[in-house]
Amino acid sequence: MPAGSNHRGLTLGVDVGGTKVLGVALDSSGAVVCQARAASPLSLHHLQGKSEDSRASGRSAPTGPTGLNSVVAAISEVVGQLIAATGSDPAGELAPSLGVGVPGLVDDDGTMHFAPNLPSGTGVDFKSGVTSATGVTSIVIDNDATCAVLAEWTLGAAVGASDALVITLGTGIGVGIIAGGAVLRGKNGYAGEAGHMVVDPSGPLCSCGRRGCWERYASGSGLARLAREAATAGRLAAVMALARGDAESVRGEHVTEAAAAGDPGALEVMAELGWWTALGLANLTALLDPSVIVIGGGLVGAGDLLLEPTRKAYEEILYAGAQRPTVAIVPAFLGEVAGAVGAALMARSGSRTGAIPS
Amino acid sequence: MPAGSNHRGLTLGVDVGGTKVLGVALDSSGAVVCQARAASPLSLHHLQGKSEDSRASGRSAPTGPTGLNSVVAAISEVVGQLIAATGSDPAGELAPSLGVGVPGLVDDDGTMHFAPNLPSGTGVDFKSGVTSATGVTSIVIDNDATCAVLAEWTLGAAVGASDALVITLGTGIGVGIIAGGAVLRGKNGYAGEAGHMVVDPSGPLCSCGRRGCWERYASGSGLARLAREAATAGRLAAVMALARGDAESVRGEHVTEAAAAGDPGALEVMAELGWWTALGLANLTALLDPSVIVIGGGLVGAGDLLLEPTRKAYEEILYAGAQRPTVAIVPAFLGEVAGAVGAALMARSGSRTGAIPS
Repeated sequence: MPAGSNHRGLTLGVDVGGTKVLGVALDSSGAVVCQARAASPLSLHHLQGKSEDSRASGRSAPTGPTGLNSVVAAISEVVGQLIAATGSDPAGELAPSLGVGVPGLVDDDGTMHFAPNLPSGTGVDFKSGVTSATGVTSIVIDNDATCAVLAEWTLGAAVGASDALVITLGTGIGVGIIAGGAVLRGKNGYAGEAGHMVVDPSGPLCSCGRRGCWERYASGSGLARLAREAATAGRLAAVMALARGDAESVRGEHVTEAAAAGDPGALEVMAELGWWTALGLANLTALLDPSVIVIGGGLVGAGDLLLEPTRKAYEEILYAGAQRPTVAIVPAFLGEVAGAVGAALMARSGSRTGAIPS
Repeated sequence: MPAGSNHRGLTLGVDVGGTKVLGVALDSSGAVVCQARAASPLSLHHLQGKSEDSRASGRSAPTGPTGLNSVVAAISEVVGQLIAATGSDPAGELAPSLGVGVPGLVDDDGTMHFAPNLPSGTGVDFKSGVTSATGVTSIVIDNDATCAVLAEWTLGAAVGASDALVITLGTGIGVGIIAGGAVLRGKNGYAGEAGHMVVDPSGPLCSCGRRGCWERYASGSGLARLAREAATAGRLAAVMALARGDAESVRGEHVTEAAAAGDPGALEVMAELGWWTALGLANLTALLDPSVIVIGGGLVGAGDLLLEPTRKAYEEILYAGAQRPTVAIVPAFLGEVAGAVGAALMARSGSRTGAIPS
């Protein structure tokens, strides 16, 4: 039985997203035996209206109704559900280990130092908080996209690749990198923040305080922004109907719903989303030369409505595209649980390297 | 004596740039014992007026006066000088090995498949050509920036770093990457082409056929372009005087010369160059999280006139800059010979991994 697993070979993984907190229990074969979820303590809507200063300071860490930090409370709620569902004993000799993926810069000690999409989690000592609330003592914390790439590389769409990328398109963009047959972490464990690669210095303001970051275009919030612009310009009648006639209420889901029904205006916005997605993927390919790019996160639920325009634009945009072997752009095999599964794999290995003990 | 060295422990390295071909003989301690140089077969000026199609096709491979491909001829000329200067015998038992760095996408067999700044070198079998012309049989070919990062990491400004970048700012931009204590090569050996990271989709046309690539701003040709724009707008009287009153004749050297003399207009253009340089460095830092960034290539000759505005803008632009340990931005220790020294190190190791036999 691998180190870090409980009496049934289980480890726990939790992925903290911008809209939900998702947990899994993973057995020793890598199968998900149960899932749990809770609302994220802070969706992007709550950020609107906050000043750049307070968002960028990393000092806000509001507490929930229980007095716990709200992110710690949400993680602990999901862990509690998993412990109950699997009949685990956090105080027992074979207590399950826990991995947690969070959307921000996480140091080797597991503290998140910056997270523009989840400011209430910055500067928080997750390990102590979650241990206090749940009794689980063996905890590994890492970036959510790094967790996702570990999962897809170990069990999913990038198995066997020496050089691969996992791009999670959710509230923001996360990037996990496999390079030369290993997870690329960077000097401080901060690698992969390509959502904040500037692709248009005169573009829209980002939650990080700068302009034209890639995630202002190619993410759930980016899709909503592109759609609001199109709706305001009168190009999205069908989408506007779904949003009850209020351009400011247009959400990404309205666009994908109308696009699935064949609405030309909505399909045009999806093509625009695909173009911006492809632009960033082309930049990453020029730099890192992967053989496969795995697209995960909430937006990949749109399926070929997103992937087809992305592949088409990528082929047109890619530097030296005609001189390279084809790069596969594929949906995440593990879907929305990739981050949680990767976190559980880290817990199993007992470290952020994610290497599975043989 | 390491494998790949000749009877005096020498190996040869040649760096093919957009304006010159530079060669070194390296002794077993890593010291440069002699240098040689020749004009590059194709400077960027020759590209102007050529159609996108012929530039991107990779089919043009003009021959020089000797009937050799012009790039092969230039490399062979430099190798011939090095052989004569070191008294080497290419046919002898301990003949020197040769490494060659070229500005483009080089596969594992040493063929360059794409090089917008050196189209006459694309699709050429360098090894056979150079062996025929010089008698040297042991040849390793790689990307020039990959050679440069190997040199700076082994002998220069990035010694001991687990995660580092070398950025060569010359005719174009080359990027060499150290990640997790190894040279990052990518699936096909094509990694590091960050000069073609798009940073403004509506920007100026690039030699690769796209718009707004980073090297259209932060390179020798980018500086000349920024300067011509400023001159045309009437902001560069001192520089215009150096260019004899013709805005279209303004070159990067005119700007650095006027900036060194304290001309406010020229200093403003250098600040603009620094801002664009910093933008790309910030994008790469967000993605790769290095501890040190080494700036090489011809432009670094401008010294603090380039580095100071770059550092200042980088500090302002960097994602989560306040939450990270400081990233050092330093000039290349090996200066203009970094690429050639790295090529010689690859030759010494006998492979593109560049690992020095112990």
